[in-house]
Amino acid sequence: MAGREFELIYRHLGIFGAGPQVRLGVGDDGAVVALPPNSELVVSSDSVVEGTHFPDLTLPEYVATRAVAAAASDLAAMAADPLAMTLALTLPEPDELWLHSFSQGLERCVQSLSLPLVGGDLTRGPLAVTVTVMGSVPTGSALKRSGAKPGDRLCVTHTLGDAAAGLALIMGKLQPTNDIPFEDEEFLEGRFYQPTARLEWVTWLREHAHSAIDISDGLLVDVEHMADASGCACTIDSSALPLSPALTRLGRELCLDWALAGGDDYELAVAVPPGVMLPPGLSHVGEFYEGSGVQCDVSPTKRMGYDHFGA
Amino acid sequence: MAGREFELIYRHLGIFGAGPQVRLGVGDDGAVVALPPNSELVVSSDSVVEGTHFPDLTLPEYVATRAVAAAASDLAAMAADPLAMTLALTLPEPDELWLHSFSQGLERCVQSLSLPLVGGDLTRGPLAVTVTVMGSVPTGSALKRSGAKPGDRLCVTHTLGDAAAGLALIMGKLQPTNDIPFEDEEFLEGRFYQPTARLEWVTWLREHAHSAIDISDGLLVDVEHMADASGCACTIDSSALPLSPALTRLGRELCLDWALAGGDDYELAVAVPPGVMLPPGLSHVGEFYEGSGVQCDVSPTKRMGYDHFGA
Repeated sequence: MAGREFELIYRHLGIFGAGPQVRLGVGDDGAVVALPPNSELVVSSDSVVEGTHFPDLTLPEYVATRAVAAAASDLAAMAADPLAMTLALTLPEPDELWLHSFSQGLERCVQSLSLPLVGGDLTRGPLAVTVTVMGSVPTGSALKRSGAKPGDRLCVTHTLGDAAAGLALIMGKLQPTNDIPFEDEEFLEGRFYQPTARLEWVTWLREHAHSAIDISDGLLVDVEHMADASGCACTIDSSALPLSPALTRLGRELCLDWALAGGDDYELAVAVPPGVMLPPGLSHVGEFYEGSGVQCDVSPTKRMGYDHFGA
Repeated sequence: MAGREFELIYRHLGIFGAGPQVRLGVGDDGAVVALPPNSELVVSSDSVVEGTHFPDLTLPEYVATRAVAAAASDLAAMAADPLAMTLALTLPEPDELWLHSFSQGLERCVQSLSLPLVGGDLTRGPLAVTVTVMGSVPTGSALKRSGAKPGDRLCVTHTLGDAAAGLALIMGKLQPTNDIPFEDEEFLEGRFYQPTARLEWVTWLREHAHSAIDISDGLLVDVEHMADASGCACTIDSSALPLSPALTRLGRELCLDWALAGGDDYELAVAVPPGVMLPPGLSHVGEFYEGSGVQCDVSPTKRMGYDHFGA
C-alpha cells in the first residue's frame, strides 16, 4: 500500500483504533494488543461478498454493520470478551462517499461492541469485506460447540426469523408489500442490515452454559452442528420459538419457516444445563437427549439455510 | 456456512490447524490460541485479489504462498514470533482441483513458517484471499516503524528486485525472453510466486534493531514510510544494493529500477544502530540522519512502487 491509499485508510478507519488493550493501532506493519492475564486468545474471520451475502447496492454503512456483526457474533458464541478487530476491504473504486458511509457503520460497531479497529487493508477489486475479530477468555473457559449434554435445554436469545423476513422484503419477494406497516418493514429490514452480535451474553454464558453457537445459517442447521459436535440429539418445539410482533403479523407459516431455517439473525443458540434459571431474553425452545439428529414438530416449507456452495 | 462448504473446508484446510499454542483449531465458531506468558499479541491482515495482486490464472498454490508470505512478513517486520493465522478464501466456484493445489501451497507455508491455520471462511465470489496473521512479542518489544534514529544504518535482508523482475517475465514485459537462461527465469519467477517471509530474523531484530518494515511496495516507498514515521531523513547508496546473480544478468539499469522501486520482495528494511555487527544476509545500503525525505544517487526510470488506488 502506498500514498493515497494510506491516506484513505487513515482518514476513514484509523480513528477507530483506540482502546484500553490496544498498544499500537492502525498504521504500522501490525497492531499490538495486550491480553488480560491468564487468558487465551479467541479469533475468527468472516468474509462478506457483494451479491452473495448482501444485495448489490446495499448502503455501505450496512455492509459494515453486517460484516462486523457476523464476525463478532462468533466471539459471543465462544463466550469471549471482545479485544479488537482487523478489517480487509476490497473496493472497485476509491470512493470517498462510499468510505464515509461505510465508516459510519463501522464506528457504530466499534463503539457498541467495544471492538477497536487495529488493522486495515484496502485493496482494489470486487466489493468484499473480511473481518477478523479477536477476543479473550480466562484460560480454558471458551465455550465449544461440542459441550452440549443430554438433559440440557436448547435456548435462543431475543427473537428469530426477523432478518430473513427483512431480506425477503428487501429483495421484493414478499407481495403485496403495501399491506405491511411501514414500522414493521423498517424493523425487519433493520434486523437484516444491522444485526446485533450478542456480546452482552458473554459473562452469563461463561458462568452457566455448556455450549453455544451463533445462528447464521438458520436454527435447524446450526443446532444440528452443535448436536453433531456434542454427540447428542435435539428436539425443537416450534410453538416455543420467540417471534417478534412484526414477524408474527406476516402470518404463522412464513414466520416459522424464517425462524427455523432463515439465517442472518446472528442470535445465539445455547445449551443450558438443568437447574440453571433462565434470565429474561433467553427462550427455552428445545431439549438435548441421547442420540443423533435434530427433530422439529414442523418442517420449513423449503430448505432455507444458507449454503454458498450448496445446491 | 453449511453442508458441503463445511466439508470442503475440513478436507482441505482443517488439517493444518495443529500447533503447540493451538488450544482449539478450525471447526468451531472461533479458534483458541494461547500466548506465551508476559507477551503481547501482534496482528496484521492482508488481502490479495486476482488481477490486482497476482496475474489471472496464477497457479492456486502460488496464490496461497504469496498471500501468506505477504501477511507473515508483517510479523517479521514487527519482530514477532509466529502464533497462528486465519484465512478467508473467496472462490467463484467450488473447485476440488483448485483447492487441492491451493492447499499444497498453504501446507508449505504452515510448515515453513510455523503458522498453523486456525480459522477459515470459504465464500463464493471473485477470487480473493485475506490472511490474518497473529504473533507474539515479549511485552513492549514490538519493533515499530517509528524507531529509526539519526546515525542508524539502513540495512536490507537477502536480495532486492527479484520478484519485480519475475513479475515482468510472467507478464511478458521482458523481451526477448529467449536470451534469459531458463534457470534465471525460474529463480526470478519463483521469487515472485513464493516469496519468503523473513521470520528467521525475528530474534536478531528484537535484540539489535531500532526499526523494521517489510518491502512490499518497493524500497524507496517503504523506507520513506519508515523515515517519515521516525522523523528522520535517509540516504540510499545504489551501489550497495544486494542483487542476485540472475537479476544482475538482466542489465544494470533495469536491476536498479526493480531493486529500488519494484515491490513484492517481502524482504525487510531495517534500522540498525551504530556499533552493532551486521550478520551475513544483512546488507548495509544507507544511512539515517537528521531531516526528512529519502534520497538516492539514482532515480528509477519510472515510479514502480505499487499503489492500488494511485495514478
